[in-house]
Order: sequence, then structure tokens, then C-alpha cells
Amino acid sequence: MTIEQDPVVTTADPMLRSTRRRNHKTSERIARDIANYIVDADLPEGSTLPREKEMLEMLGVGRMTLREGLRLLETQGVIDIRSGPRGGPVVRKPQPDDLAGALTLLLQFHRASLADVMLARQALEPMVAALAAEHITDDQVARLQETVDLMRAHTTSQEVFFLQNERFHQLVAEASGSVILQVFSDTLKNIASGEDFGIEYRPDHRTAVADAHDKVVVALRKRKPRDAEKAMREHLSEAAQYWNRRYPELMARPVRWVQP
Amino acid sequence: MTIEQDPVVTTADPMLRSTRRRNHKTSERIARDIANYIVDADLPEGSTLPREKEMLEMLGVGRMTLREGLRLLETQGVIDIRSGPRGGPVVRKPQPDDLAGALTLLLQFHRASLADVMLARQALEPMVAALAAEHITDDQVARLQETVDLMRAHTTSQEVFFLQNERFHQLVAEASGSVILQVFSDTLKNIASGEDFGIEYRPDHRTAVADAHDKVVVALRKRKPRDAEKAMREHLSEAAQYWNRRYPELMARPVRWVQP
Repeated sequence: MTIEQDPVVTTADPMLRSTRRRNHKTSERIARDIANYIVDADLPEGSTLPREKEMLEMLGVGRMTLREGLRLLETQGVIDIRSGPRGGPVVRKPQPDDLAGALTLLLQFHRASLADVMLARQALEPMVAALAAEHITDDQVARLQETVDLMRAHTTSQEVFFLQNERFHQLVAEASGSVILQVFSDTLKNIASGEDFGIEYRPDHRTAVADAHDKVVVALRKRKPRDAEKAMREHLSEAAQYWNRRYPELMARPVRWVQP
Repeated sequence: MTIEQDPVVTTADPMLRSTRRRNHKTSERIARDIANYIVDADLPEGSTLPREKEMLEMLGVGRMTLREGLRLLETQGVIDIRSGPRGGPVVRKPQPDDLAGALTLLLQFHRASLADVMLARQALEPMVAALAAEHITDDQVARLQETVDLMRAHTTSQEVFFLQNERFHQLVAEASGSVILQVFSDTLKNIASGEDFGIEYRPDHRTAVADAHDKVVVALRKRKPRDAEKAMREHLSEAAQYWNRRYPELMARPVRWVQP
């Protein structure tokens, strides 16, 4: 199999472990150049990129390399490649979802389990909630309250429960004001969504989760970081205990990079 | 530009925001199948994958699709594609470094700054240190102590300083026992390495950093999670203050997906 090559640099010296092991491929450089071009030119979502012929001239590379670069950008959520006569690469803005695949793949090779994901969430989200108490807006408090109210009003619906559960955790992460922690938190939530794994909650458990969420919202409304941190820690600890008790095999199962 | 297409699914309904917006492309499916094959067959690092002709038959796809899938796996650190007569795709194990590019790209589009990265590290690493105090081995304590000793013995060397600083933070993350938090922590460290940004420390500052690291190591050796958390929090807070005071323009600069 011949694919265009750059030299591979490897080292066994642990003192140099931090050194990147390989040079980047041309298609990665092209992808980076296009991404920088989009950001620097401030191209809005939905913009179309120049036609292939034009890009080949601008970038001075072969058609295969350009297409590989574009496919890479598509995987990373920077563009959609649309079909049809008015098709071609269209700019979008990468979202945490776009990273979840790559992270899941990495975790799969490191044999991480769903229990590992839950442990990381337990370490991460209380801190995210504390930051949220410092940065949350009144509008965000209102939207959080809405997720709690909807969850309580529809305790018989597993679908509403999972959707409002997801919205709750997303909104807290968004309110933290840290796009980085938001990405981490959303990514873990995406990997370990109970819904995807076939976890079921009884109506009384759904009410208990709504109550736990409510405690977090109360602390956030009062802008009390330590209370928000504590309420989130207790909520996730209870959730983890519930999952471990009811779904031990599931929790021990290694995460896999599956079709979302 | 025509590239093989799957239908694009979009939605403007915020209730459905969590729904993945598009179907996955065939090359992503192929990449996933090959990754699952490697994990399930427990192929060790350095193994070669079947020849192209054989893989095309196994997977029932076109040559272009297979090559895109392999390039994608290479970007994600699952394989190296080697050149030469004995070349082809060779199995490796993805590392946090392999995710840093995709994460940096995402942060770039969300206009995150170096200050944002430092804030996330300040939120994340104290908690990682607390977990490390619960899971650290004697060997890991010894290796951490070595980084402190080397830093102290070579305060005149910026190179030794940055290398031992990086090793220190990597080792604490490794000792946490959470591969997920290790990935997050290493990724942030990779994005925000002072060295890459041209940050300089005077010898007396290097000594102060070595002392701060030493406090963390003392708490880890005693297996005291709260002390380790506190020592790490103080260390990063001091570092952030130093960077903000000395390099304000640098801290405000948006992160960019650059060639490592």
C-alpha cells in the first residue's frame, strides 16, 4: 500500500517521550491552513469554500492531498461536504460532539470502562458547577429551572427524562464560562449517556434525579460555588451508585468507538 | 468538488440539538471497523495490518474509501503509515498527544485564549492531584521526586526546567489512575506549554517552581488528597499570576492549531 509519506520519527528514550513522534502529513498541514484561513477571514457558518480548482492553485498541492485534508476537516467538524450541483465544502463550527469520537477511540485503546467515564465525570462536574455559580446568567438559571420543571412534569416519560437530563448537564457546563471544561464535560456525557447503554430509571428514581438537579439549581441561583459543587458531587455519586448496583456488567464494559 | 456523499441531516430545533447532525461517512465507518478489529484481536503495537488488496476484499469498499479511513486512523494515532518496500499501516496505541490537535482546533473556533487554558488547568489539575494521592505507587513517588531533584540541580538550564516541569505534570496525571483525566490534563499541558509560547523563567523562579512541585510530592508521598489538591492549586495559581503579569498579551492570544 503506498500512500504519500513523511519520515517517521520514533524514540525509545523516555527523557524524550514528550517529543512528538512524527512529522505531520501534508494533508494535515493543508487542513490546518484551511482552518486558519476560515478563522482569520472570520467566515460565518454556512459559507462555502472556494472551488476545488481554485483551492488547488492557492495551496499548491495535489487533488488527493486536498481531498484528504478536507475529509479530515469534516471529521473534526470544521466543514460539511455537501453533494449535488451546488455542493462542496460548507463552513461550520466544530462542537464537542465532533471530539467525542476521537476521545472515545483513545479511551477504547486504553481499555477505559464506563465506570472510568463515570469516575471522571464525578471528578470534573462538581468543579464545573462551582465555576458555573460564579459565571451563570439569570437566563441560564431560568433555562436550568425549566429542565427541572419539565423532568418533574413528565416522570412517566423516559424520553423526556433523558433529554432534560442531558440539557441540564450541558447548561451547567455552558454556564461555567470555560469552553474547555464544557468540551470535556459534554464529551464525557456523550460517551456515557445512560440512554445509549439501555439504562432505565423508574419514575420514583426520575423524581429523585429531578430533586438532585433542583438542589444544584438552587445553589447556582444563589451564586454559591461551594454549595453547587457539593450538590453536583452528591448527585453524581448517587447516580454512580445506582448504575453500579443495577448495571454492574455494563459499568465494567470497555467503551467502544461506535456509530453515534 | 465531488466527494462521495452521505445525506446531511440538519435541524434547527433546539430540543433536538443533541441529535447528531449528520450520518457518518463510509470512511469513518471503515476506520471504526479497523479500530475495533485491532482492539478485539488484541494486536500489539508494531503489528502490520493486512495488505491493501486483502483489506479491500474484507471490507468491501473502494480503494479511495479505504485510504481515507486509514488516513483518519493515522490522524487519530491508531496507525502509522510507513513508506518503503516493507511499508504499510503499522499498529500503534493512540496517545493524548494525538487528541491535542483536534481539541486545539475546536478551541480555536471557539476563540479560547491561553488564559482560558490556564483557567481550565487550574480547575482540573488540583482534582487530578487529589486522585493521585489515592492511587500513587511508591515507584511513581520516586519518579516525581526525581523531577524535582533534577529541576533543583539544573536551575540554570531552561531546557531541563521545561522538560522536568512537563514530566512532573504528566506523572501526577498518570498517578491519578484515570486515563480520561490524564488525557484531558496532558492535552491542556500540550496546548499551553510555556516553552512553545516563548515564556522564560529566571533561575530564582525556577527554584520557586521546584519548591512548589516538592510540596505536591510531599502530600502525594503521605497519600493526603486534600493537601495534594491544595498544593497543586496554589502552584498553578502562582504560575497563572506570573504569566498574567509578565506576558499579558500572550495570555490573551487565541490558541491556534499549529504544527507541533
